[in-house]
Amino acid sequence: MQSLSTETSFALLEKLRAERPLVHNITNFVAMTVSANVLLALGASPAMAHAVEEQQDFAAIASSLVVNIGTLSAPWIEAMKTAAGHYAAAGKPWVLDPVGVGATGLRNTTAADLLSMRPTVLRGNAGEVMALAGMAGGVKGVDSTAGSSAAIDAAAGLAEKFGIVVAVTGETDYVTDGVHTVEIEGGHELMPLSTALGCALSGVVGAFVAVAPPFEATVAALATYAAAGKIAGDLLAGPGHLPAELCDALYALDANRLAANASVTVMGA
Amino acid sequence: MQSLSTETSFALLEKLRAERPLVHNITNFVAMTVSANVLLALGASPAMAHAVEEQQDFAAIASSLVVNIGTLSAPWIEAMKTAAGHYAAAGKPWVLDPVGVGATGLRNTTAADLLSMRPTVLRGNAGEVMALAGMAGGVKGVDSTAGSSAAIDAAAGLAEKFGIVVAVTGETDYVTDGVHTVEIEGGHELMPLSTALGCALSGVVGAFVAVAPPFEATVAALATYAAAGKIAGDLLAGPGHLPAELCDALYALDANRLAANASVTVMGA
Amino acid sequence: MQSLSTETSFALLEKLRAERPLVHNITNFVAMTVSANVLLALGASPAMAHAVEEQQDFAAIASSLVVNIGTLSAPWIEAMKTAAGHYAAAGKPWVLDPVGVGATGLRNTTAADLLSMRPTVLRGNAGEVMALAGMAGGVKGVDSTAGSSAAIDAAAGLAEKFGIVVAVTGETDYVTDGVHTVEIEGGHELMPLSTALGCALSGVVGAFVAVAPPFEATVAALATYAAAGKIAGDLLAGPGHLPAELCDALYALDANRLAANASVTVMGA
Repeated sequence: MQSLSTETSFALLEKLRAERPLVHNITNFVAMTVSANVLLALGASPAMAHAVEEQQDFAAIASSLVVNIGTLSAPWIEAMKTAAGHYAAAGKPWVLDPVGVGATGLRNTTAADLLSMRPTVLRGNAGEVMALAGMAGGVKGVDSTAGSSAAIDAAAGLAEKFGIVVAVTGETDYVTDGVHTVEIEGGHELMPLSTALGCALSGVVGAFVAVAPPFEATVAALATYAAAGKIAGDLLAGPGHLPAELCDALYALDANRLAANASVTVMGA
Repeated sequence: MQSLSTETSFALLEKLRAERPLVHNITNFVAMTVSANVLLALGASPAMAHAVEEQQDFAAIASSLVVNIGTLSAPWIEAMKTAAGHYAAAGKPWVLDPVGVGATGLRNTTAADLLSMRPTVLRGNAGEVMALAGMAGGVKGVDSTAGSSAAIDAAAGLAEKFGIVVAVTGETDYVTDGVHTVEIEGGHELMPLSTALGCALSGVVGAFVAVAPPFEATVAALATYAAAGKIAGDLLAGPGHLPAELCDALYALDANRLAANASVTVMGA
Repeated sequence: MQSLSTETSFALLEKLRAERPLVHNITNFVAMTVSANVLLALGASPAMAHAVEEQQDFAAIASSLVVNIGTLSAPWIEAMKTAAGHYAAAGKPWVLDPVGVGATGLRNTTAADLLSMRPTVLRGNAGEVMALAGMAGGVKGVDSTAGSSAAIDAAAGLAEKFGIVVAVTGETDYVTDGVHTVEIEGGHELMPLSTALGCALSGVVGAFVAVAPPFEATVAALATYAAAGKIAGDLLAGPGHLPAELCDALYALDANRLAANASVTVMGA
């Protein structure tokens, strides 16, 4: 744990680029295109498939799965659960992004059901993580109104209870397995003004867990994204070109740029 | 009515930015990402949710609803009607964008059914508004082939019949409540060459009606968008970067830029 | 056949721009927005509609259909087959893009069913074309791992068997009717790093077949896209802005730029 750093994150990024894992996404309609572009720029190979009939086939060929509940409906929920079951049975990692949990009963039930299937990594904002932990979170639509540090305890509780890695992202990001917690700094204030960049980050986590153990993979994913987000945002005066610049920053990210634009700190060590 | 101007429009934009309303969209697949980005750049908080099971929950937490029929199917039509009913029951505004009405029987039936539920604002191009009014419009797919001024009478008739505000947008935009009509100039000839910018404008109307009375809100939405569109288009030689530049122009829009790039004229006054 | 060239391709592009055909797309969620923007920049009028109830109406008003199986589900498969039947019955051309065939049973069955309906043009990458031809292809998710030239024989076999035009696209593109084969060079190495650009190319083929015979139309579509892709990619250091630059290059493409950035060669002549 002590060895986690931007250097170890970059080593995993290089591993990811060499292996080019196939990352299967069942994600929301708003996030699909930007998630695919982010994964391609990162060095992964994205696939999007939501038909319940092809979940078993994808679990056989893909390296990991990302489930995002942003735009739900009954057939998609069935596909999400089916897919999670097949990936778990195959011993392959999967990531849960519980978009907007706390906002509606359907999201609450779906997110709780999926969480009970023990995703490899749960990634959400503070409001979503607190809602899942049953605390009084502040979910306003799909954005969180609470700072990410407010959800550290909730995240650690969920991590311990389900035996998973939990990432809370926001202005500062946290990764916890219930025992250890790592803080990642970076990113840019324009990022919340460009839609689905959090969803795309879950895709990035999905790519890293395909090539490394969950905790280290999640830290590396968040550090990579934080650095690319800062590089991209620093070039811009508004949010319009942020997805394109984020992709370019991911595509061109090297060890020096990663270390200069993000930090990884093991907490309470 | 006489007091409507780019100044009053900007005052409402400032109100919108301060209140950051949650705008719930049931929109088409092509428009989702750009609509969300436009709403974020404007200062609103977008949510996309189409499951019939969560329409009541969203009507309780969101400030307004935007219904866009661009990519229909039976479950979505059911969700649109259910949502419209819940927002109406809650006394919250909702906007109807009847994309491509006139092109197919399914669109005609769906748009007519939704119109009979009396949206707060109806926004369409000339062909769509004329098709809804039962006149001989020219709908070619989802683009209108008639100039927007040709639909003023049709718009006024619909406004009067249903007791709603109707906006006809095109090279010049018109807003009418059946008695008063306001003309908005601005925009850019590249805008029709970038997909779903009309759909995203309906989202912008949805954000403004969340913070102001329907007529003034619709005028402010169209003036804001017309100015941002002109600012963005004037920077470009082609349509590729228009969505990004439009977002940046919305994000940076101030009173002077709004007044310099759009005009608001009360007609027949 | 000997007369096919970038000059004849540009003549068809000018015809397309003059006629502005309505191109109906039943395509995947990832590709919808970029496909629509590419078609608009090219000079066509895109429509997206997947409800089975409106396929007959669209077949009556649109000039051509593009069917893309990238994100399948049962209702969409039914709509695709229904649409293909109506366009065929109306004597209008349609294009099949068998995204990811070879990856899952559902894709294999659906692509085979649609192919048996004899699309006017089949466009895929090498892995997809070889999978359809029953050869040992290399399909990794939705990307092909085989070079396009490896699929020329498979493409010619499919073209001859079904009496259709087959296009295999990749670093080099090939068009065959089973007897004649044309090679198109151009494009850029960044193109595979931006999602759905192959899908958008199928949309471009759909626009050209609306205004010209299938073989010449497909060559012109690929030459146009290859030139625009090269122009766009040469401006960039990363993939982020590629869709926007591709649209701008299509929008501004003239005869000289087309000839300077793509080549058309009749093979074995």
